[in-house]
Amino acid sequence: MTKNQIEELQTIFSEKNVLTEIEDMVAYSYDASHVEVQPEAVVFATSTEQVSQLMKLAYREKIPVTPRGQGSGLSGGSVPLKKGIVLCMDRMNRVIDFDPANRLITVEAGMTTADIDPVAVKSNLFYPPDPGSVSFSTIGGNVAENAGGLRGLKYGVTKDYVKMMKVVLPQGDIVTLGNKCVKHVAGFNMEGIFVGSEGLLGIMTEVTLALLPIPEHRESALAIFNSLEGAAQAVSDIIAAGVTPSTMEFMDNATINAIQNFKDCGLPRDGAAVLLIETDGEKNSAMTEMATVEVEVKKNDIREFARAKSSEERDRLFEGRRVALNALASVKPNLILEDATVMRSKLPEMIRGIINIADKYQLQVGIFGHAGDGNLHPTFLIDMQDKDEMARTEKGVAELFQLAIDLEGTISGEHGIGLEKKPFLKDQIGGEGIRLLQNIKKTFDPLNLLNPGKMFDMPDEQSA
Amino acid sequence: MTKNQIEELQTIFSEKNVLTEIEDMVAYSYDASHVEVQPEAVVFATSTEQVSQLMKLAYREKIPVTPRGQGSGLSGGSVPLKKGIVLCMDRMNRVIDFDPANRLITVEAGMTTADIDPVAVKSNLFYPPDPGSVSFSTIGGNVAENAGGLRGLKYGVTKDYVKMMKVVLPQGDIVTLGNKCVKHVAGFNMEGIFVGSEGLLGIMTEVTLALLPIPEHRESALAIFNSLEGAAQAVSDIIAAGVTPSTMEFMDNATINAIQNFKDCGLPRDGAAVLLIETDGEKNSAMTEMATVEVEVKKNDIREFARAKSSEERDRLFEGRRVALNALASVKPNLILEDATVMRSKLPEMIRGIINIADKYQLQVGIFGHAGDGNLHPTFLIDMQDKDEMARTEKGVAELFQLAIDLEGTISGEHGIGLEKKPFLKDQIGGEGIRLLQNIKKTFDPLNLLNPGKMFDMPDEQSA
Repeated sequence: MTKNQIEELQTIFSEKNVLTEIEDMVAYSYDASHVEVQPEAVVFATSTEQVSQLMKLAYREKIPVTPRGQGSGLSGGSVPLKKGIVLCMDRMNRVIDFDPANRLITVEAGMTTADIDPVAVKSNLFYPPDPGSVSFSTIGGNVAENAGGLRGLKYGVTKDYVKMMKVVLPQGDIVTLGNKCVKHVAGFNMEGIFVGSEGLLGIMTEVTLALLPIPEHRESALAIFNSLEGAAQAVSDIIAAGVTPSTMEFMDNATINAIQNFKDCGLPRDGAAVLLIETDGEKNSAMTEMATVEVEVKKNDIREFARAKSSEERDRLFEGRRVALNALASVKPNLILEDATVMRSKLPEMIRGIINIADKYQLQVGIFGHAGDGNLHPTFLIDMQDKDEMARTEKGVAELFQLAIDLEGTISGEHGIGLEKKPFLKDQIGGEGIRLLQNIKKTFDPLNLLNPGKMFDMPDEQSA
Repeated sequence: MTKNQIEELQTIFSEKNVLTEIEDMVAYSYDASHVEVQPEAVVFATSTEQVSQLMKLAYREKIPVTPRGQGSGLSGGSVPLKKGIVLCMDRMNRVIDFDPANRLITVEAGMTTADIDPVAVKSNLFYPPDPGSVSFSTIGGNVAENAGGLRGLKYGVTKDYVKMMKVVLPQGDIVTLGNKCVKHVAGFNMEGIFVGSEGLLGIMTEVTLALLPIPEHRESALAIFNSLEGAAQAVSDIIAAGVTPSTMEFMDNATINAIQNFKDCGLPRDGAAVLLIETDGEKNSAMTEMATVEVEVKKNDIREFARAKSSEERDRLFEGRRVALNALASVKPNLILEDATVMRSKLPEMIRGIINIADKYQLQVGIFGHAGDGNLHPTFLIDMQDKDEMARTEKGVAELFQLAIDLEGTISGEHGIGLEKKPFLKDQIGGEGIRLLQNIKKTFDPLNLLNPGKMFDMPDEQSA
């Protein structure tokens, strides 16, 4: 970038909000994936108008712009692959409007997602999507990746809560998409296509989200199984009984052992699998549902079923799940956390397939995840310095994705495509599917300047 | 259309599935709106492959194609404005796959929406969206218009249940969009943009829908208010108390009197407004919620509150609502049923505004609708032969739309834009919003042959 371009950035954002020093470029070169590219400048936006001016400048001068929340994404979405400018949104973090009568909140895109609930709770409301990163990721990032979380089966994902948004289009125009009403069918569902668009179509600066009443009561239980089949069948039986648990977390034997090595959470090392189950709602309803869960679970190959009688007991039962990722991370220097997802009914096949792949390539894998919505997190425990192991891991991961596709599932349940899964998207959606995405990208961003090189290549691009 | 073109249609669809006689063209010239244009041919599809061949022919020969379900739309969406071919989808009405373990059903687009539940009920599941037309409209039409219904507040609308679809693109390519998993973030949310796209982007031939467990219990009540303000405040108080009724139907005094003139349903002619309220779920939960409803409703300007103790009592309480539209239709030769929608909190202002508009233009209006989600149906009772009254009605309707926009609402909650509301869309979404829609339409359908002239004009088009 030229001196003039940097000065123009300083005029838009003020001098202190434009970074160009090499150590800063390093700091903004990566996210929570495994790709690093340094930008040429980093800017911090505090208003929609600034973002609009930035995109007008970028379009005039043909400079790539990569928007960034807190850089906690797992697919490389905020890595500035084509250099240029990193646009940091995390200083746009205000509540614009809290509207309990309509169960809505409007916030700036850089707000940390977990900061929504302390506002909503004042009117006994909450924001349901709860990705693992909820305490540090931004709502803008959550919308860009259509973040999921533990409560997907009962409460859905980010897209189910996005009502309206203010967006700066790639050429600098500011538009409002969607509407605050429950029902709205005037024009195409534009807000819908922005959710999960990974920063390729425009920059969301404000978003209006739907909130729900906080459930009156929550019941929690831990079930330990003697076989994988028992756990999987229990999940099916619970659903077939008409119960929709708010949480149904799965952990396999490898994860159980990693946890017990890390910290004694009272889990049996020879248990084949664990399910952590919660029901919520009106008190009688949540209790009745958990009673049904108990009946269904005990039909299967169960070793132990423990219901929490207090929040302290709940915390104890859930401690293993809380430390699971740290426990797995402590086994080897690195881990690769995947999110290939299948329909609930295909979980047993998927789990067996993952174990077979790990065996085939001599890889250590721990499997945990959200059994209710079929969203597993097979986590490969590796040493990235070990080139042979890395090569085997890459083959194993590629097979994992193919397995998910073969089972009518998806290569990404909640982390997005970004850079990490870009080579596999065509297998998922086909050549015609890729062409549709390319055409839409071109419609919004004819010069391919906004987060270029992510999700898919444009027809005239080399593969990244 | 030429003889050769008709013959080619006969080759694709077989002779008996191609109509060209004038009386048939009349039969397929209208829907439930107020526009009529005769096509040049009508075809009945029985497979996705036929639809693909049709679009290839249409593109080669530049013939407009307008897809049609049962023609029950209220906005002109299936009227063949630019003539050409009407593509009837209602013979594609099979269940492709019912998958209770994953709470999914895959059906052909021409299936009548009400035909889904008799399949789903076998596993104690149901399809929640329930537009007024549910017993005759097709699921394809419901998806094209993003149909709503009575249960929007608690259960959402069509788009909340669409997981995956098979689509024939305007140039004949067949693509599958979306995925059967609860969570899926691979590529843009393409299935999302097809919901509510009014047949402008492609022709959906199959759709996979999410189902929910049938609630164990339902509680029903009728509340009669002495003032509009009392009814509106009761709606707010119920929501503020954390209750989310499955139904909360509103009827005003004019509607009450139309009903009583039509049939004695036991409603008091001097009642200002009625709310019909249902809660559902686990039995205790539904009953507790209705007890809260009773407390909140009785805080307000209430005349009578009756809870149904049996399904017969429920039927009696709800009889007025069931006959409301027929009752209003019997007052004058014609009616114009609108669906301008606001946020719940703005309902009192909206209702007063509608009454003021009716007074200003000396129009008869009955207001009923879905109070929980702010989706009102102001229904103007008119004689279309009376040109003066028609002119006043058009002015009144235009003011109604502007009022909805001024109150941050929408010109259409559930009927769509089509032809009826096309002149008002720019007021809703702005010039930049229209340009976005035009660009997306052009990306999918560069020759503008699929349902042309609906929702918005293309840049090179004359206004319809």
